[in-house]
Amino acid sequence: MTHGKVPATPRSTLVITAHAGDFVWRAGGAIALAASRGEKVTIACLTFGERGESAKAWREGRQLAEIKAIRREEAERAAAALGAGIVFFDAGDYPLPVTPELTDRLVTVYREAQPDVVLTHPLTDPYNGDHPAAARMALDARVLAQAVGYPAEGEIIGAPPVFFFEPHQPEMCGFVPEVLLDITEVWETKRKAMECLGAQQHLWEYYTDLGKRRGVQLKRNAGPNLGLPHATWAEAYMRPYPQVTGELA
Amino acid sequence: MTHGKVPATPRSTLVITAHAGDFVWRAGGAIALAASRGEKVTIACLTFGERGESAKAWREGRQLAEIKAIRREEAERAAAALGAGIVFFDAGDYPLPVTPELTDRLVTVYREAQPDVVLTHPLTDPYNGDHPAAARMALDARVLAQAVGYPAEGEIIGAPPVFFFEPHQPEMCGFVPEVLLDITEVWETKRKAMECLGAQQHLWEYYTDLGKRRGVQLKRNAGPNLGLPHATWAEAYMRPYPQVTGELA
Amino acid sequence: MTHGKVPATPRSTLVITAHAGDFVWRAGGAIALAASRGEKVTIACLTFGERGESAKAWREGRQLAEIKAIRREEAERAAAALGAGIVFFDAGDYPLPVTPELTDRLVTVYREAQPDVVLTHPLTDPYNGDHPAAARMALDARVLAQAVGYPAEGEIIGAPPVFFFEPHQPEMCGFVPEVLLDITEVWETKRKAMECLGAQQHLWEYYTDLGKRRGVQLKRNAGPNLGLPHATWAEAYMRPYPQVTGELA
Amino acid sequence: MTHGKVPATPRSTLVITAHAGDFVWRAGGAIALAASRGEKVTIACLTFGERGESAKAWREGRQLAEIKAIRREEAERAAAALGAGIVFFDAGDYPLPVTPELTDRLVTVYREAQPDVVLTHPLTDPYNGDHPAAARMALDARVLAQAVGYPAEGEIIGAPPVFFFEPHQPEMCGFVPEVLLDITEVWETKRKAMECLGAQQHLWEYYTDLGKRRGVQLKRNAGPNLGLPHATWAEAYMRPYPQVTGELA
Amino acid sequence: MTHGKVPATPRSTLVITAHAGDFVWRAGGAIALAASRGEKVTIACLTFGERGESAKAWREGRQLAEIKAIRREEAERAAAALGAGIVFFDAGDYPLPVTPELTDRLVTVYREAQPDVVLTHPLTDPYNGDHPAAARMALDARVLAQAVGYPAEGEIIGAPPVFFFEPHQPEMCGFVPEVLLDITEVWETKRKAMECLGAQQHLWEYYTDLGKRRGVQLKRNAGPNLGLPHATWAEAYMRPYPQVTGELA
Amino acid sequence: MTHGKVPATPRSTLVITAHAGDFVWRAGGAIALAASRGEKVTIACLTFGERGESAKAWREGRQLAEIKAIRREEAERAAAALGAGIVFFDAGDYPLPVTPELTDRLVTVYREAQPDVVLTHPLTDPYNGDHPAAARMALDARVLAQAVGYPAEGEIIGAPPVFFFEPHQPEMCGFVPEVLLDITEVWETKRKAMECLGAQQHLWEYYTDLGKRRGVQLKRNAGPNLGLPHATWAEAYMRPYPQVTGELA
Repeated sequence: MTHGKVPATPRSTLVITAHAGDFVWRAGGAIALAASRGEKVTIACLTFGERGESAKAWREGRQLAEIKAIRREEAERAAAALGAGIVFFDAGDYPLPVTPELTDRLVTVYREAQPDVVLTHPLTDPYNGDHPAAARMALDARVLAQAVGYPAEGEIIGAPPVFFFEPHQPEMCGFVPEVLLDITEVWETKRKAMECLGAQQHLWEYYTDLGKRRGVQLKRNAGPNLGLPHATWAEAYMRPYPQVTGELA
Repeated sequence: MTHGKVPATPRSTLVITAHAGDFVWRAGGAIALAASRGEKVTIACLTFGERGESAKAWREGRQLAEIKAIRREEAERAAAALGAGIVFFDAGDYPLPVTPELTDRLVTVYREAQPDVVLTHPLTDPYNGDHPAAARMALDARVLAQAVGYPAEGEIIGAPPVFFFEPHQPEMCGFVPEVLLDITEVWETKRKAMECLGAQQHLWEYYTDLGKRRGVQLKRNAGPNLGLPHATWAEAYMRPYPQVTGELA
Repeated sequence: MTHGKVPATPRSTLVITAHAGDFVWRAGGAIALAASRGEKVTIACLTFGERGESAKAWREGRQLAEIKAIRREEAERAAAALGAGIVFFDAGDYPLPVTPELTDRLVTVYREAQPDVVLTHPLTDPYNGDHPAAARMALDARVLAQAVGYPAEGEIIGAPPVFFFEPHQPEMCGFVPEVLLDITEVWETKRKAMECLGAQQHLWEYYTDLGKRRGVQLKRNAGPNLGLPHATWAEAYMRPYPQVTGELA
Repeated sequence: MTHGKVPATPRSTLVITAHAGDFVWRAGGAIALAASRGEKVTIACLTFGERGESAKAWREGRQLAEIKAIRREEAERAAAALGAGIVFFDAGDYPLPVTPELTDRLVTVYREAQPDVVLTHPLTDPYNGDHPAAARMALDARVLAQAVGYPAEGEIIGAPPVFFFEPHQPEMCGFVPEVLLDITEVWETKRKAMECLGAQQHLWEYYTDLGKRRGVQLKRNAGPNLGLPHATWAEAYMRPYPQVTGELA
Repeated sequence: MTHGKVPATPRSTLVITAHAGDFVWRAGGAIALAASRGEKVTIACLTFGERGESAKAWREGRQLAEIKAIRREEAERAAAALGAGIVFFDAGDYPLPVTPELTDRLVTVYREAQPDVVLTHPLTDPYNGDHPAAARMALDARVLAQAVGYPAEGEIIGAPPVFFFEPHQPEMCGFVPEVLLDITEVWETKRKAMECLGAQQHLWEYYTDLGKRRGVQLKRNAGPNLGLPHATWAEAYMRPYPQVTGELA
Repeated sequence: MTHGKVPATPRSTLVITAHAGDFVWRAGGAIALAASRGEKVTIACLTFGERGESAKAWREGRQLAEIKAIRREEAERAAAALGAGIVFFDAGDYPLPVTPELTDRLVTVYREAQPDVVLTHPLTDPYNGDHPAAARMALDARVLAQAVGYPAEGEIIGAPPVFFFEPHQPEMCGFVPEVLLDITEVWETKRKAMECLGAQQHLWEYYTDLGKRRGVQLKRNAGPNLGLPHATWAEAYMRPYPQVTGELA
């Protein structure tokens, strides 16, 4: 929050994703940036992506439990590389169901994390229904966690801003870059975290190209006067709620 | 710009409006805030609102030149109250035409003002065509002023962020509050500037109510934890271009 | 207006169209209904549709003046059949330009007609640019005619409700039926007016089918309880401005 | 229905809401107007708003059953003040689930009430998921209640028009005023009903301001010629289905 | 697929619908065309439309089992007339629930049919919630059937293009014709299939008119140069996924 | 046109762009593909991009005439590399005006080229107003060229399909890939044409990355079964008019 008092405790960021790898490709820069400033980042993975995003392992003939273990281990290493903590719900993917029980577990995560910022998927994705399902529960749980009357452990939360990170096919998901985050200073960290995900090696270059392209767009929108370095890296986000600020910029 | 180096010169804000009173009702808080921080604010009024927004004066039987003089004098006092400079194009309202000549004059204003922030109307208003016309030219001129090949005096500009201020009937203009600006500390200044506009006295209470309502909305979106004061005042804005930032907040 | 006092003079309807035939196909039922209640209806045709909607006559080798005369005569007979007056601007079609001069002439028409209801084209039509051009000027002139400061003859007007009538390819023009008008009692009159348009005979059946289809939709939305007759005819409209009413129905 | 035969029995209005207070803030004027004309109004409250909209009571340390009792008693008094009957489903709020069972209970309510008009929430609300849930079930049940094959007690219903009332943050819910209802003559009644809701006293002024603002908008859209009184009060609504009418107005 | 290798086996089309009659009215031409080219077409009817689309039978006093049998028999004859196979899920209509079990059954259908093309309802229909429910499951199952990790019988499928067929009230369902399919050569076959549906005889003329109207639109969009016959019949479709092609046409 | 008779003359493609380089980056693959099939391609460049897209040359101190000559020569070489003819309107860029005269010149180009396919910019681009201006005139001229009554040389045209090519910042222009064109077989040709544009060398890699990314998306949407090669290149397009076809694929 650029507006208001500086909180006494370090800022807290909560990242809610459908599958084990999502937080790296789509929000690794934001996570590394926050961690590099000494803030706390908690990643909640609802599933390991064991069925829908582990085609290589299935083709190699591995079993479900083994695949889950591989994806978990990869994700834990990537989270550590970024400087974040991670928890797994093991809710089962493809399809990830939207249930009151999962939503309730997320309420508890919210009340524990007391986030100042929330990151999750957009609400539309015609290529993967788990992503909107995770986002739907992330948003619902955030509202429930604010209510003093909702029966869950912990203190109620405020109204932390929410950011939707970029889906794989942005134009098909109604995704428009509303916020361009400069991640140049942590780019190497994000790249290292991506390289922890051996099961999806074909995505390393893809998301490196994306980081570069969003960097070009950031420079275009920041204007040449800012003197940004030639190699600027960025991530794109949407805001489902209005920005609250003390200054237009 | 929350992102990048602090510029050597004071920040500059450029406000482009259709009629003499628009900047007060819709952006008076943002102007007063910037001025209160020692920044430079330039208001470009394309017309005096002499035909379309001066019904009272016409009913009193006044003549065109007299009405323009009244509106100019009011607007100059309001701008002074807010701490801003003001220039008038006297382009003729109702209808304000979209022309290459007016757009070119705005290019020169951009290159002189070298704005870090631009405020103008949204691009749709079914109740007053002058507002979109002014916005259309404000956006076109901003792009032209960036081009080294465009033949106008002065240095080219960067790519300053643009904010659309709130129209009179927001829902009918596709206006959605994307940015809520806390103007509590300059609220009294904005109210004084409104009171300079004797020709539109019926709007004083209307925009006081609006400031209060947007303040309630700001508190709702900021969350109770921020400890904002009971009486919070706000203005709402939209962004036609993505926000560039170094931190999600 | 279902709301407010009954005006002393008969209600007045103003229909603004691009081409000579438009008012028959798209709004003939509304016109006939109003006329049948003793109300005054004025049709303003900006062009004769001499270039864009008279392919048959051009193929027969006719000249421009002759084609205009044919279209004018057809339109006058159709207007008479519906019970409406008609004026022609002869502004030239394909393309119909959007100009301050035409808009100003429409302001005068508004102030003379003092309409209680305005009918015109929707603002989008990828198959015929003249339709949105006419609508743009119809809406702009309506706003200008309300301003006491606008220099035109006649009394200023109120804020009459506007209805967009149905374009030829509704789904491609963003047209959604927001109002279904029951024209059953004047259907024969509309059919007779269509038959005045010999140059476009291929459209008689097309618009008869459309009237039937909108009638089916009207019955579906009215509910079976109303006991509407089997053969119900309807026209569809959109509202660019909110409905003002004293009763939800 | 402005169109068709006058029904033999008095008109019936059905209001379906998520929480005990919603009908007062958002539709109190429409309810009072209908009742003042001798029509029957039935309010179906799916929950008491005991968890999500009773923060004050929870902070005072009250228990669930007590809070429900308070909210019920308040709502009953407000309904009586407006002249309406009220039923409670006690389905549990925050979150209100969308279930076949609740939908089925609503079908029975529809068949009993045989409504000529239905009022409910819009289908989007990023600040409170119970509102869209109630609306979803209200719309689904309306369609089911029309089918002779649906196994529920009572006569099938027609296709009554539906009106979405205004949410707390209209622009964030895609709410656009499509219908402005003049509630001036029952404004005092609505204010009294609001004052029955002691648990949400902070909203009294908020919704008084809103009634005034919508009244200003109504006058702007009705036009000055109607001679509406200075103090006009209004409520805004949307229509998910087309209006069926015998006259454009 | 106009692009890529010709598959060794005949092309396969999968049609997923909510009710027994839907495939005839909305996609009968596409089905007959594919069958006439020697392709395989499989229709999956989730319900018989026994409650929501069999009003006539209920009014005649028939029982549920009998109505199902009538609708099944009609649909089987219509499918045979078009040259397609048909399977019934008997999942229960009005309302058709969206469940993991039904979705899973559809995954098996996909893996068996190995479709090259998929046809289903659009995702919005304010007049009948069963249609979007069927479409939701059709799309979800298509994505699940692609995943090697999803536990169902049969080979995984590719990414067959999906086409939404036209709903009864297109403009109210956000339906825009994105593809116009020329069905002239199979029109008589479609008409015969419609005439198998005795329970919905009132729709025969309605969908004959629609076929003619979409034919007119096809000719308008194909251009006069193509020399299409006077009587051209067409069906309209939408594409939720991008077209993949080797040539722009 | 996949539908209808094969025309006697070779197919003709017309590309209408704002600036000299646009056709290479955005549609070079489609142009090379058509040319490689022996079809005729005509490129109409409304300006040389001399002011808005030649920053490097201006910074080097070159004069207007010299810059135009450089851009013309580059574009001619690129067009030759792709196998297309090119004409320049020299209408002046930044801003490119929308005028009846330019539109009329385009009508003549349409009647000469008798295009079977038309390519142009999308109608929205907040970063460069010349692009929508060119598209606006391209669409208007296409409609005028169809009218036998429009006074221009040459035969009237049919209704050729239009494709919008991809803008530089697709998400900010409302651009959604509706058609993915496989350009793998002409990729080297497109790359060579890009390398003719020395003034914009920074874009070579950018558009190479884009070609690769759209290729990945094409494979994702075509499905793995098609056996497309690992390195697939593609371009994305939108369709403002419906596709006309004889087969769903």
